[in-house]
Amino acid sequence: MTLAAFGSVGLDDISTPEKSVKGVVGGSAVYFSLAASLFTKVRMAANVGNDFPSSVWDTLRSRGVDLAGLQEFPDRPTFRWSGRYEGAMNEAVTLKTELNVLVEEPQIPESYRSARYLFLANMGPDVQLRILEQFPQATAFADTMNLWIHEAREDLDRLLQLIYGLVLNDGEARLLTGEHNLIKAGAALQKLGPDVVIIKKGEHGAFLFTPEGRFGLPAYPVEHVVDPTGAGDSFAGGLMGALAEADDLSMENLRRAMAYGTVCASMTVGAFSTEALAQATRMEIEERYQELRDFLRF
Amino acid sequence: MTLAAFGSVGLDDISTPEKSVKGVVGGSAVYFSLAASLFTKVRMAANVGNDFPSSVWDTLRSRGVDLAGLQEFPDRPTFRWSGRYEGAMNEAVTLKTELNVLVEEPQIPESYRSARYLFLANMGPDVQLRILEQFPQATAFADTMNLWIHEAREDLDRLLQLIYGLVLNDGEARLLTGEHNLIKAGAALQKLGPDVVIIKKGEHGAFLFTPEGRFGLPAYPVEHVVDPTGAGDSFAGGLMGALAEADDLSMENLRRAMAYGTVCASMTVGAFSTEALAQATRMEIEERYQELRDFLRF
Repeated sequence: MTLAAFGSVGLDDISTPEKSVKGVVGGSAVYFSLAASLFTKVRMAANVGNDFPSSVWDTLRSRGVDLAGLQEFPDRPTFRWSGRYEGAMNEAVTLKTELNVLVEEPQIPESYRSARYLFLANMGPDVQLRILEQFPQATAFADTMNLWIHEAREDLDRLLQLIYGLVLNDGEARLLTGEHNLIKAGAALQKLGPDVVIIKKGEHGAFLFTPEGRFGLPAYPVEHVVDPTGAGDSFAGGLMGALAEADDLSMENLRRAMAYGTVCASMTVGAFSTEALAQATRMEIEERYQELRDFLRF
Repeated sequence: MTLAAFGSVGLDDISTPEKSVKGVVGGSAVYFSLAASLFTKVRMAANVGNDFPSSVWDTLRSRGVDLAGLQEFPDRPTFRWSGRYEGAMNEAVTLKTELNVLVEEPQIPESYRSARYLFLANMGPDVQLRILEQFPQATAFADTMNLWIHEAREDLDRLLQLIYGLVLNDGEARLLTGEHNLIKAGAALQKLGPDVVIIKKGEHGAFLFTPEGRFGLPAYPVEHVVDPTGAGDSFAGGLMGALAEADDLSMENLRRAMAYGTVCASMTVGAFSTEALAQATRMEIEERYQELRDFLRF
């Protein structure tokens, strides 16, 4: 089934204990679509400025991604993010954010509206709500962040009542619910509206909460984490891609999809920017999926 | 098979966000033996002062624990530990430690020396080495802590070359190897000597490293963590108990034993002190083991 994805295109400055890079390809919609397109037909929407390398679009097109929703601003720069990782690199310290073309709302091509699955990457919940309205028949998942939990709580609460699934990280889950215990936080988030809640825990894996039960997954064991940027969006892309491919929201398929998300995230963190994920093949994904099963079997 | 366990008996003052308790039963040997005795015959050795409640010994005896190695000091107080947990309660802040009877080395009853499995809970590696010498035929696992990594590195390095398995937490693994990445740290620890390395990650579960491969396990999902004290020692007790019960060090059985360890830890954290673990039955352990399998299945 077709999956519509709304998010950001970005140029990132990333500093890790080993190396620093500047102006590399990033953005939630890019990571998400690279991962999801390994599984299903993706329709991507995002705003981009005049300074973004076009090779990324070739890669996405070669995976069948529809870029009709890519809105180009010839006189303005792309969204920029600058971040630093330290120690275990589990969390980025944001050094600078320049919204640039992100201040404009993304376009929704008429052709996208038939998508059966919808992913709303982190953006203002008011914008997420306006996009969601245009997809009344889609199964929608959304991400969010601390900023909106603090500053747009009313819109976020409305959004939570309308989406099928919420994907967020452990810190956001704790902030949104006031619960330190993530098992409790998951249950509390379900009460806010979404049927399905997924809490991403970085190197510690992820939890899934559904009306049918719970599921836990450690991360795929990566020996050399080069750059965690985009891991969460790659996870969401693999997850939603696998859900849309099977067109199946059962607990069984949600478990499988979580494992595919974990595998996609493990690809991303193995190199800077989208380098590794852009090279990944479905066969490599399947190999790591089997390795993950074996790693966890008892 | 019989399992000999050396560690501490303690009285703990524990403060959590919900409640504080003073002078409650604790100590690595107590938690370890309560858990391990759900699986196999345990011979426990530890020093205790004149101020420790005897009801604990009744519980341990009722589970078949041999207490010949319990060395009582009628004129001195028991080891005391005081700690505080905050937020997600993943790590204790130690407020005070009074060694008291722990300055004396534990006794080794002649009858203990035939034990096929040996667990050396956290104590000075010089003491661990002297005990280990007395068990030339046992499969030995040991725990350690930051203090010894900093201050007794030579003895610790010697110990690591002699033991079969090392059980330690994520912070200790990072400190001992200088590796932030736990997958790398596990491999680095194996190079220091032990065949088997187990890294405990608190609420995030545990990793196993063996010559045959790796295994990862999230924690059993506990909704209400009351008191994490003793979780690591209960994990080790369940692990070693299950290994000794099956007398099987295969990768398959190590995986199973890790899951039993996780289940025992989940019992412990559900109440203050040893309250929940002392009440636990083998049937409850088996139920949670099945729940954990189901939680992780995909």
